[in-house]
Amino acid sequence: MIRSLDPPKRLLLGPGPSMVHPRVLQALSTPLIGHLDPAFLAIMNDLQSRLRHLFSTANRMTIALSGTGSAGMEAAIVNVVEPGDAVIVGVNGVFGTRLATVVERCGGTAIRVEAPWGQIIPPDMIETTLRRTGPVKAVALVHAETSTGAWQPIEPIGRLCRDHDTLLIVDAVTSLGGVPVEVDQWSIDVCYSGTQKCLSCPPGLAPLTVSARAMDAISRRRTPCRSWYLDLSLIADYWAEGTRAYHHTAPISMLYALHEALCLIEEEGLPARFARHRLNGDALVAGLAALDLPPLPLDEHRLPMLTCVTVPAHIDEAAVRQQLLQTFGIEIGGGLGPLKGKVWRIGLMGESSTEANVLMLLNAVEELFIRSGWLSTPGHALQAATRIYNRGL
Amino acid sequence: MIRSLDPPKRLLLGPGPSMVHPRVLQALSTPLIGHLDPAFLAIMNDLQSRLRHLFSTANRMTIALSGTGSAGMEAAIVNVVEPGDAVIVGVNGVFGTRLATVVERCGGTAIRVEAPWGQIIPPDMIETTLRRTGPVKAVALVHAETSTGAWQPIEPIGRLCRDHDTLLIVDAVTSLGGVPVEVDQWSIDVCYSGTQKCLSCPPGLAPLTVSARAMDAISRRRTPCRSWYLDLSLIADYWAEGTRAYHHTAPISMLYALHEALCLIEEEGLPARFARHRLNGDALVAGLAALDLPPLPLDEHRLPMLTCVTVPAHIDEAAVRQQLLQTFGIEIGGGLGPLKGKVWRIGLMGESSTEANVLMLLNAVEELFIRSGWLSTPGHALQAATRIYNRGL
Repeated sequence: MIRSLDPPKRLLLGPGPSMVHPRVLQALSTPLIGHLDPAFLAIMNDLQSRLRHLFSTANRMTIALSGTGSAGMEAAIVNVVEPGDAVIVGVNGVFGTRLATVVERCGGTAIRVEAPWGQIIPPDMIETTLRRTGPVKAVALVHAETSTGAWQPIEPIGRLCRDHDTLLIVDAVTSLGGVPVEVDQWSIDVCYSGTQKCLSCPPGLAPLTVSARAMDAISRRRTPCRSWYLDLSLIADYWAEGTRAYHHTAPISMLYALHEALCLIEEEGLPARFARHRLNGDALVAGLAALDLPPLPLDEHRLPMLTCVTVPAHIDEAAVRQQLLQTFGIEIGGGLGPLKGKVWRIGLMGESSTEANVLMLLNAVEELFIRSGWLSTPGHALQAATRIYNRGL
Repeated sequence: MIRSLDPPKRLLLGPGPSMVHPRVLQALSTPLIGHLDPAFLAIMNDLQSRLRHLFSTANRMTIALSGTGSAGMEAAIVNVVEPGDAVIVGVNGVFGTRLATVVERCGGTAIRVEAPWGQIIPPDMIETTLRRTGPVKAVALVHAETSTGAWQPIEPIGRLCRDHDTLLIVDAVTSLGGVPVEVDQWSIDVCYSGTQKCLSCPPGLAPLTVSARAMDAISRRRTPCRSWYLDLSLIADYWAEGTRAYHHTAPISMLYALHEALCLIEEEGLPARFARHRLNGDALVAGLAALDLPPLPLDEHRLPMLTCVTVPAHIDEAAVRQQLLQTFGIEIGGGLGPLKGKVWRIGLMGESSTEANVLMLLNAVEELFIRSGWLSTPGHALQAATRIYNRGL
């Protein structure tokens, strides 16, 4: 029986959650006020305008949903897709696969456009499919495929969707706050994220933005949204100034935390934040390459905040992860689905993305490799990473 | 622009959220560990056994869902109900009405058994309906109707459901932790709650327990659950020792908070906790009666933690609520739906249920009534409440 919480000290360098800034932890413990208190509504307003900045959008309907990033995915699909609707889904990893499943659970038809795991979905494959299938309700893609580290180009697909008068749904769970997510410029209609990745806030909320075009499509549904909890037409009435109609009790403490995380992001500035993620990602990849751990995606499609590296067969990847956790208190992620046992997924997201963490991890991996006889000379990984830091971006 | 959170000091005596103990606020700010970290899984195990105690159940599938109480309602329905299934729903307030809506959104047929708001659903009405309709998939009822303060008897309906081989779904959002919820003894198959009422934890999680009978019915569905996020067969694989399959990232900080809230409940003991809610509820009702504010439900069906009182037409109820908030920092709730402008809803839930809070509220209401000329002699309300405290239960 656990009578008092005393979790071990961890350095979170997995695919999420990431490290949380002490100011965000402190915000969580702010005494609660009511979810309809005028003072709370003012915080919500401010939070919305900060989220709009982060998503680079003017969308009025920009909120934080009361669920994790996966609830964001479900909300995006269940509101847009009606039974019988066709949706083109890019499938090149766990989260694209999940998107297609959710489309089908909502009664839609998922037209899967597939690419090998670790690669992107080539925009021309989406174009060919759009021409072949005729009108579809939406195209859905994962911007940052957390299971493979692939960085999907969105902008060209946004143009295609406008040309074909179809909605564009983008999963930005892992990308938001770490690389640019230009909702308006790229013509994204529904974009959702999670708080526990590059926003460095605990898991539990899904930032979400919806274009006027998509809200209009939602308002013209022939059937009510199958989910009451995630019905955006009802949720909009709670977030909208003027109405503020009770729908469900908002997760007040989590919204406090997200607000503080967004303040920290504003203080750093988005360009500096993106550059930090890029530099630390590059240094990590250089260090891992020196250990013969190559990234799964091509260099031009490699995410800076989530590095997926192939682990050679002679290395017991699960044992290394376990030792990293037990001996060094460092969490990294293993592979999912077909990549299970074959890759590591290392997150340098938000607060986790620091030079100190990169060097600490590389040092720990080298140490474990030497202990197991997989490496004879230490220091190469740190040297390779240091060269990147000395060079800069 | 809000650069630093500084919400006003509030005494939360509305229908939720309730006051949160400092130890729970502190637990929220515990540094995070991963959602698959062995140390976190140990916390989840402990949390599950504490929830089983609270629900008085041996159900293996006893968890906290990653959403608010409303997500608990949706999870209960969307997992049990398949398109075409009939469900008998007790409708005597906002939350029964919502249950029926959710059944319909899930493709089921809601057979509404209605009673006037403020009254209970008489068990014999459920029996008559069961006899009339023949086999239905489930009966769904609200144990504590937060919109009216009515306390629904569940035990006799549990027996009826067993006799008619139908599942029993119970909304215990407001009741759990404040009055007995005997899941096994009352033959409840699916019972869900929220954290922000009598558990005195911030909103954001839905404690949920599911009988083996209901899990079996879920596993024999002809169609997959329409919600991927709330699919209990997938969520069970994350919570089950042995599998621990990744489904979505658990809201770690909220689970820390709930764990601490459950520790506090264990330290107080359930019988003492129920007695405290009863005594403070009785004292509040006695005090309000002295101000000619009678409870809406009959005395034998009146919830101790949520008191709904009728406000006479000559009193400007919205103005009083606003002054309570602005002048005294006390939040109470107004009426919903047909009760809007006609009632107050006062919550004495969890940490909010104290003698000091009862007396503070009665004093503030008396003060405002005197200022507005609705009362000439002060002190009657406090005297009436004090008589209850002197007498005890």
